[in-house]
Amino acid sequence: MFREKIKVLDCTIRDGGLMNNHDFDLRFVREVYRAISEAGVDYMEIGYKNSKALFSPKEYGLWKFCDDDEIRKVIEGIESRTKISVMVDIGRVNIDDVKPASESPVKMIRVATYVKDIDKAIFMVNHFVEKGYETTINIMAISKDQGVELDEALRQIENESKANVVYIVDSFGNLYQETTEILVKRFKAILKTREVGFHGHNHQQLAFSNTIEAIIHNANYLDATIYGIGRAAGNCPLELLIGFLKNPKFDLRPILDVISSEFIPLSKKIEWGYVIPYAIAGMMNEHPKAAMALRSSDKKENYREFYESLLNTGLE
Amino acid sequence: MFREKIKVLDCTIRDGGLMNNHDFDLRFVREVYRAISEAGVDYMEIGYKNSKALFSPKEYGLWKFCDDDEIRKVIEGIESRTKISVMVDIGRVNIDDVKPASESPVKMIRVATYVKDIDKAIFMVNHFVEKGYETTINIMAISKDQGVELDEALRQIENESKANVVYIVDSFGNLYQETTEILVKRFKAILKTREVGFHGHNHQQLAFSNTIEAIIHNANYLDATIYGIGRAAGNCPLELLIGFLKNPKFDLRPILDVISSEFIPLSKKIEWGYVIPYAIAGMMNEHPKAAMALRSSDKKENYREFYESLLNTGLE
Repeated sequence: MFREKIKVLDCTIRDGGLMNNHDFDLRFVREVYRAISEAGVDYMEIGYKNSKALFSPKEYGLWKFCDDDEIRKVIEGIESRTKISVMVDIGRVNIDDVKPASESPVKMIRVATYVKDIDKAIFMVNHFVEKGYETTINIMAISKDQGVELDEALRQIENESKANVVYIVDSFGNLYQETTEILVKRFKAILKTREVGFHGHNHQQLAFSNTIEAIIHNANYLDATIYGIGRAAGNCPLELLIGFLKNPKFDLRPILDVISSEFIPLSKKIEWGYVIPYAIAGMMNEHPKAAMALRSSDKKENYREFYESLLNTGLE
Repeated sequence: MFREKIKVLDCTIRDGGLMNNHDFDLRFVREVYRAISEAGVDYMEIGYKNSKALFSPKEYGLWKFCDDDEIRKVIEGIESRTKISVMVDIGRVNIDDVKPASESPVKMIRVATYVKDIDKAIFMVNHFVEKGYETTINIMAISKDQGVELDEALRQIENESKANVVYIVDSFGNLYQETTEILVKRFKAILKTREVGFHGHNHQQLAFSNTIEAIIHNANYLDATIYGIGRAAGNCPLELLIGFLKNPKFDLRPILDVISSEFIPLSKKIEWGYVIPYAIAGMMNEHPKAAMALRSSDKKENYREFYESLLNTGLE
């Protein structure tokens, strides 16, 4: 029943890091790596590779920078077949900081981009491929960027880039199954020699079902996070995805254990998941940053005012 | 863009009542009725009509019995076009307790049944139709009961019953979009003269997406609850469903208000929503009662042991 080609990428520490300035301690990250490895998950994304000239290590945790030596401390002594991935943003990484893959614990580099920056993304991906990495291009905020420029960007990727995988990233949690289906088919139609990936956000409780929809239409790279942690409402819960996939290489139990021991306590300190302002932002196809600001204010439960502020955006 | 025939039924008090012995106080139920009415929701289901010979009013709240006079206290003085619904279970109601519709504030009676009890359900539905009520037959635990007996039951309903609507009830939260699609098509193929309804449970965060899937395949009666309250993981969140439907008769704001004022405080007292043992029960197609018992025990976060206990069920 299972599809051999499907690869699951856990981005717990990377996307979850957006909620705590990437400041997970070493013990916690090792516990996650141990669980992901025992569960048989294909990739674990550990953070962003940002330039220290642009962001201060005093203000951010280790996983904003992902130095190879820090990654080595995470994986040391833990038996694993899980490959380590890092993400880079356009304009925030010094590519000379990235050593050849043969000298690094990192196996995959994912380039996050908007449609408008696709030329830069292709340049970076090709550079990383030359250094020996597996690569992906992750097209963010896709629900706001579905014009003809998207087709042009996909054609460019197909013709000019060496990326292995191209991801649909529903940054705003706005897609549902019909819009997911249409996008996956559009990607597959143009990207004839690449794999398609899907990264959902859970603002409307649709990240898991959209991931299933992407699977149905032959996306083979699937992002998920433990207990759904991630920016705002978070991502597709890894435990649900593993429960759904029938590949016997996966074991749900280590994920259940680490939720019990680490993520239930963490959920009392950091907020993610089904929170009404995130749901409102998702249904109105808006970036969650206004909702995140609301949740940090003393109006955090004032949903009507927040909804009306989005209703009125751009009306004047 | 909207489909005129779609009717939304709020079952906040009825399904939510399964988590607190149906013991919502009058003020709370009036606040819900006010919000549902202002939001333009078509129906509000207020509880079960159970026989007081079988259940003691000392042990359960008012909404286990739904006396007409208690319902009148809820709706009195609140302007509304929302119709009141009550649910009955096979073998738990004394049908002589049900007055003619012309003498009751109730407009719709929904009969919850398993496939095996379909003859009793048809008898009851026809009785209530004669008394002047709109009626539905809600087929529970559908994910465990998809053999040929289901087709036979649907044919009987089509040929022998006067029910207006027949519901697919995913009691175990096990369906996903493909299984939902197949069931809705199967219902529609046999029930040529009836509407099809969908009642999801949210164990795997799929209640909303399954409801969307049911809409896509022409189910027109949709259950939801405010902030997703309901047994175990709860139901399809009404606020998400209203956000998705484009019918201008609906207004999201009263629902947002009542979540802020009533459901956020309530969520600190009663547990529902995304809880790992419910997710496990859903993915393994089991009744949530074992998971609910676990959540009331001192092993509430011991997910692995619970998972393994279900894995081993029936192996010996």
